[in-house]
Amino acid sequence: MNMPENDKQSLSMVTCTAPVNIAVIKYWGKRDEDLILPINSSLSVTLHQDQLKTTTTVACSRNFQQDRIWLNGKEEDISNPRLQSCLQEIRRFSRKRRNTGDSTSDVSGVSHKVHICSVNNFPTAAGLASSASGYACLVYTLSQLFGVESEQLSAVARQGSGSACRSLYGGFVQWKLGEQLDGKDSLAEQVESESYWPELRVLTLVVSAEQKSVGSTSGMHASVETSQLLKYRADVVVPSRMEEMIRVIRERDFPAFGELTMKDSNQFHAICLDTYPPIFYLNNTSHRIISLVHRYNQYYGETRVAYTFDAGPNAVIYTLQDHLSEFVQVVRHFFPPEVSGEEFVKGLPVCSADLSEELKRDINMEPTPKGIRYIISTKAGPGPCVVKDPNHHLLGADGLPKKSVISD
Amino acid sequence: MNMPENDKQSLSMVTCTAPVNIAVIKYWGKRDEDLILPINSSLSVTLHQDQLKTTTTVACSRNFQQDRIWLNGKEEDISNPRLQSCLQEIRRFSRKRRNTGDSTSDVSGVSHKVHICSVNNFPTAAGLASSASGYACLVYTLSQLFGVESEQLSAVARQGSGSACRSLYGGFVQWKLGEQLDGKDSLAEQVESESYWPELRVLTLVVSAEQKSVGSTSGMHASVETSQLLKYRADVVVPSRMEEMIRVIRERDFPAFGELTMKDSNQFHAICLDTYPPIFYLNNTSHRIISLVHRYNQYYGETRVAYTFDAGPNAVIYTLQDHLSEFVQVVRHFFPPEVSGEEFVKGLPVCSADLSEELKRDINMEPTPKGIRYIISTKAGPGPCVVKDPNHHLLGADGLPKKSVISD
Repeated sequence: MNMPENDKQSLSMVTCTAPVNIAVIKYWGKRDEDLILPINSSLSVTLHQDQLKTTTTVACSRNFQQDRIWLNGKEEDISNPRLQSCLQEIRRFSRKRRNTGDSTSDVSGVSHKVHICSVNNFPTAAGLASSASGYACLVYTLSQLFGVESEQLSAVARQGSGSACRSLYGGFVQWKLGEQLDGKDSLAEQVESESYWPELRVLTLVVSAEQKSVGSTSGMHASVETSQLLKYRADVVVPSRMEEMIRVIRERDFPAFGELTMKDSNQFHAICLDTYPPIFYLNNTSHRIISLVHRYNQYYGETRVAYTFDAGPNAVIYTLQDHLSEFVQVVRHFFPPEVSGEEFVKGLPVCSADLSEELKRDINMEPTPKGIRYIISTKAGPGPCVVKDPNHHLLGADGLPKKSVISD
Repeated sequence: MNMPENDKQSLSMVTCTAPVNIAVIKYWGKRDEDLILPINSSLSVTLHQDQLKTTTTVACSRNFQQDRIWLNGKEEDISNPRLQSCLQEIRRFSRKRRNTGDSTSDVSGVSHKVHICSVNNFPTAAGLASSASGYACLVYTLSQLFGVESEQLSAVARQGSGSACRSLYGGFVQWKLGEQLDGKDSLAEQVESESYWPELRVLTLVVSAEQKSVGSTSGMHASVETSQLLKYRADVVVPSRMEEMIRVIRERDFPAFGELTMKDSNQFHAICLDTYPPIFYLNNTSHRIISLVHRYNQYYGETRVAYTFDAGPNAVIYTLQDHLSEFVQVVRHFFPPEVSGEEFVKGLPVCSADLSEELKRDINMEPTPKGIRYIISTKAGPGPCVVKDPNHHLLGADGLPKKSVISD
């Protein structure tokens, strides 16, 4: 169904990309389910988009009959309440701006229907929550199209998916829980940019999972309802951890950063176990990765590597450039991969390294063949970007997804 | 090395048995490591000795050159500080009694050396903590030999192994944390006897474990040192849970008893995860048992079965007589055993049962062959007993272990 030739001029289109973020102080629990207001502040590292990103094209046209959305090549139901929240909020901000006359963009499109097309450059199987980069990218792209100011975006993205607000900035980002009932002060802000700590490196260890985990939305709801320990974590533990985390990042103190990151990951999973019925996100392979990291650090007598786990069995490893190649070799040794070389380590190149017999002996673990499927090697990166090249639009001139993005 | 014939008369000997107990409100953390004073009260069910018990013979003679101990047929080092604490404390109480002249027993033996021989009727591989029944039995047997009053035993057994104090009583037993610095009020007491709730049944599911877990002594030490959540659990959560647990036991309210038991087991394991480095006692099979119990209860819309896990992967299941045979059949279906019939279910007989296709379908789990090695079927039982028949002494007239108790 192509549009008539003479209507093509009425099509406005913008394409942007947005990053994934990995929390080091975890968000778990909402105080308001509709506005998505958290019970505690959280802090994350934004990962580099060269390895992990969502790309979204939004087009608007007076010829569109209805709002539509395609995710990873498949049309999805636009009536999803969280999608609707984001669309409504962006349109409301855009109209407000137009009415007060301080918009410099062409915002006429705000009264038109939109077509949205979004793809991730990483497989869903990688177990990385795509909702954060997805909603951040949607909201950022809409804001470019409709001329909404950037300081308002964090509250809109938050209403799509809580952690999406943190994907609106690069580097080290905190999401302050805020105090207001309407959530206007529950916003993300950058702590330090991605260039602040260039030695910091990130590895995602994609674990072979047998079963589907409980989703994070229903999981955190159950925790708020049933975990007696969660309130204490949110009210007492996290506020001091936030302060400490910001301090150790500013000091680029890796051992302190790593230890606090691991403790907060463990506490989040402890809360999941204290939920009734209990929620298990870590499997035996996750346990072995945790054990390996502690034994590796023990060997050197300092925290050189740190793990963190979200709502699934995959580990995200933080380390410094200097220790990266050796640790990857340690992983390769104790989790002998099914695939070789470059297929096992994707993303930023990692040099090869030799392991001393003493290190292997000291770690003293039985290897687990195929426990880890592959590794994505990356680092901290910038926030959302506008893609200038019109060849990269995901929608064609007809307002429909290009053939290359349609899934079979 | 036999003793000379004319010295045999000088040998006094007593044999007693003591039970295993399984906590439903968990003990985890000491406020005093030497006196073994806990940071919270705990509550357990004493298991029946027909299935699980320790048997201990203590002999004393003026001809013994030194205190000696044999555990499960192997001589062990008597200088173990906890063994020494128990021996010293019992001797101190015995002398005090002799000096005040209110002893009715022959307590002349208190100045002699002792030979101790102790065996369990369950394999160590069953993963049941034998320290509770072991120290309870030791202290109880010594008290019989040396004439020490029973109300003093709980404080002595506690100094051998904290939870041992709860094995000095049958039925439902609480260990009150106490307030005094010297621990004199940190004692066990019976809540209700073993005959109070005769329908209650207990199953130990012995899981195939791959690796040795962290010991409970070092584990709880690490938790006290590093878990921020533990203090909140001990100070805020447990006091109200103790009250509730005593109430639901008195009301024989199985759904409430079962739910609270599961929640407290989960919270204990949550604390282990919040420990740094984290401690994992549950493995994938434990996770599957937890899942099976929740799905089974879900099917019936009520809590018919409850799990609890101590410092290892084995599950202890509480249920009522009426649901026992069906649940055992459910376990057999979802964990197809390597061994058949009676070899799989040991202890109190369990009738066979048919499972409806609907139940199996509703539980909807992939069977895990050989995940559970065997089941021990039992119920609540009495406290320590004196064994009258001298044929059951584990030590011979020479004061050394009989051939039948010596391990190869």
